[in-house]
Amino acid sequence: MAVTPYLRKVQYYETDQMGVVHHANYIRWFEETRVDYMEKIGFGYHRAVEAEIDFVVMGVSCEYKSMTRFGETVEIHLRIAHIDAVRMTLQYRVLDSTTGVLRATGESKHCYYHSRRKRLVALPKELPELYEMFVRASEKGHD
Amino acid sequence: MAVTPYLRKVQYYETDQMGVVHHANYIRWFEETRVDYMEKIGFGYHRAVEAEIDFVVMGVSCEYKSMTRFGETVEIHLRIAHIDAVRMTLQYRVLDSTTGVLRATGESKHCYYHSRRKRLVALPKELPELYEMFVRASEKGHD
Amino acid sequence: MAVTPYLRKVQYYETDQMGVVHHANYIRWFEETRVDYMEKIGFGYHRAVEAEIDFVVMGVSCEYKSMTRFGETVEIHLRIAHIDAVRMTLQYRVLDSTTGVLRATGESKHCYYHSRRKRLVALPKELPELYEMFVRASEKGHD
Amino acid sequence: MAVTPYLRKVQYYETDQMGVVHHANYIRWFEETRVDYMEKIGFGYHRAVEAEIDFVVMGVSCEYKSMTRFGETVEIHLRIAHIDAVRMTLQYRVLDSTTGVLRATGESKHCYYHSRRKRLVALPKELPELYEMFVRASEKGHD
Repeated sequence: MAVTPYLRKVQYYETDQMGVVHHANYIRWFEETRVDYMEKIGFGYHRAVEAEIDFVVMGVSCEYKSMTRFGETVEIHLRIAHIDAVRMTLQYRVLDSTTGVLRATGESKHCYYHSRRKRLVALPKELPELYEMFVRASEKGHD
Repeated sequence: MAVTPYLRKVQYYETDQMGVVHHANYIRWFEETRVDYMEKIGFGYHRAVEAEIDFVVMGVSCEYKSMTRFGETVEIHLRIAHIDAVRMTLQYRVLDSTTGVLRATGESKHCYYHSRRKRLVALPKELPELYEMFVRASEKGHD
Repeated sequence: MAVTPYLRKVQYYETDQMGVVHHANYIRWFEETRVDYMEKIGFGYHRAVEAEIDFVVMGVSCEYKSMTRFGETVEIHLRIAHIDAVRMTLQYRVLDSTTGVLRATGESKHCYYHSRRKRLVALPKELPELYEMFVRASEKGHD
Repeated sequence: MAVTPYLRKVQYYETDQMGVVHHANYIRWFEETRVDYMEKIGFGYHRAVEAEIDFVVMGVSCEYKSMTRFGETVEIHLRIAHIDAVRMTLQYRVLDSTTGVLRATGESKHCYYHSRRKRLVALPKELPELYEMFVRASEKGHD
């Protein structure tokens, strides 16, 4: 069963003087979606943080397809496009939750970082349970 | 000699769909002004952070007098309204840098927190040099 | 029946290097709470915006009581402390949703602004239905 | 003569609980750099806004090379990688201003949008002076 998409209401403070959501906010929405996703597969991100593992962002991109406005709700679909022991690529699709119109697509690349030891680590060694969850989730494909 | 005000250009992403700077950004500008002030009196905030001292915000307020727009620059005046060993009150006046029109006034209240020992501390004991700088600055009054 | 409080998960990007939610975010949470409140009483804020009425912020304040961290959820209670034809005062209480520990209290003051006519207006004249809703809600008191 | 890079102090509120600048802020820095660049070549962005032309963001990307911390200043170099009548690609390099260490590289793609007519336009037709400035700047290459 695929993980349900993340539902997010647009906030007033996220708009800019063009009257639409400022483009930098989508990058924050992607982070919210990752956090929501981990919670839904049963391993909240704060548990990773407590285990001193952070998912450092190596790169991020977003392509804007149509504009999002205050009063709307978006649904954000996350797909694990690639995962191995040292890195992970996530892909996002932002849709209007009412009409299904595509708002944006995006991607983020991550590695695993030990916040106390201050170095990159292999996820299967540090958090094998989470790694297995990600691998299984990545095999389900996109909803 | 009074500390010169902090000059700040309005950023596009700080506007909202009303076409003016969103009100929450002024609270961030106050923080920028504190940091700028400490640098100007000769004790950068990051030095306090390195000494494991944070200026925890106990309260903050802002009154909005007129609207600020993209393309404008504001100048923010900081005054140390009160300081003692365990707390400090700062006051802010935000003016348009070209016309001098008042945009907002505000206040922040702080105590001193040791980030490793995780408890409130007396500033004269922890950072006597900085405390003296603040006391001297507070005696100069508002420019 | 009182309006139910606004539930809000803390986002990772809302934390700062002290490891807690940065204080300026509470001002944004207050706005989210207002918007949520209007939706719950049956008159979404975007409907006011469509009618060209904005609730301009005249002032805002927040007192911080304890620190909020990533992984936590807060519940925010809104009370209409005062309302008349030309202004409104709202009060907020932010609690940890699990423990009930008080995180912060705050207040915002608003007037009613016509975005096209670019001047302050009387709410009972512009949006009588909404004004009545606010007045009735203000009489119910705090939950 | 190449346009000088944009100097930007890291703000405290831009850090996250990992103790470094949150990755979404770089997208905002890119916008600040565009605005600064336009000012430096002699056509401030607010003048374009006044002429009802916006540089809509079609896409944005950032690759993170090393972490940026509070107390540091970055310098951001902008290069017009491509420009024609209907679109523009900008590239960014973020360096530590003291050490020259590379922090991030990025790119943004834009088209030209008429905010009142609500449609895409050709820049040479709408703002020929600005278009010529961009073309000349793009021929100078990277500093």
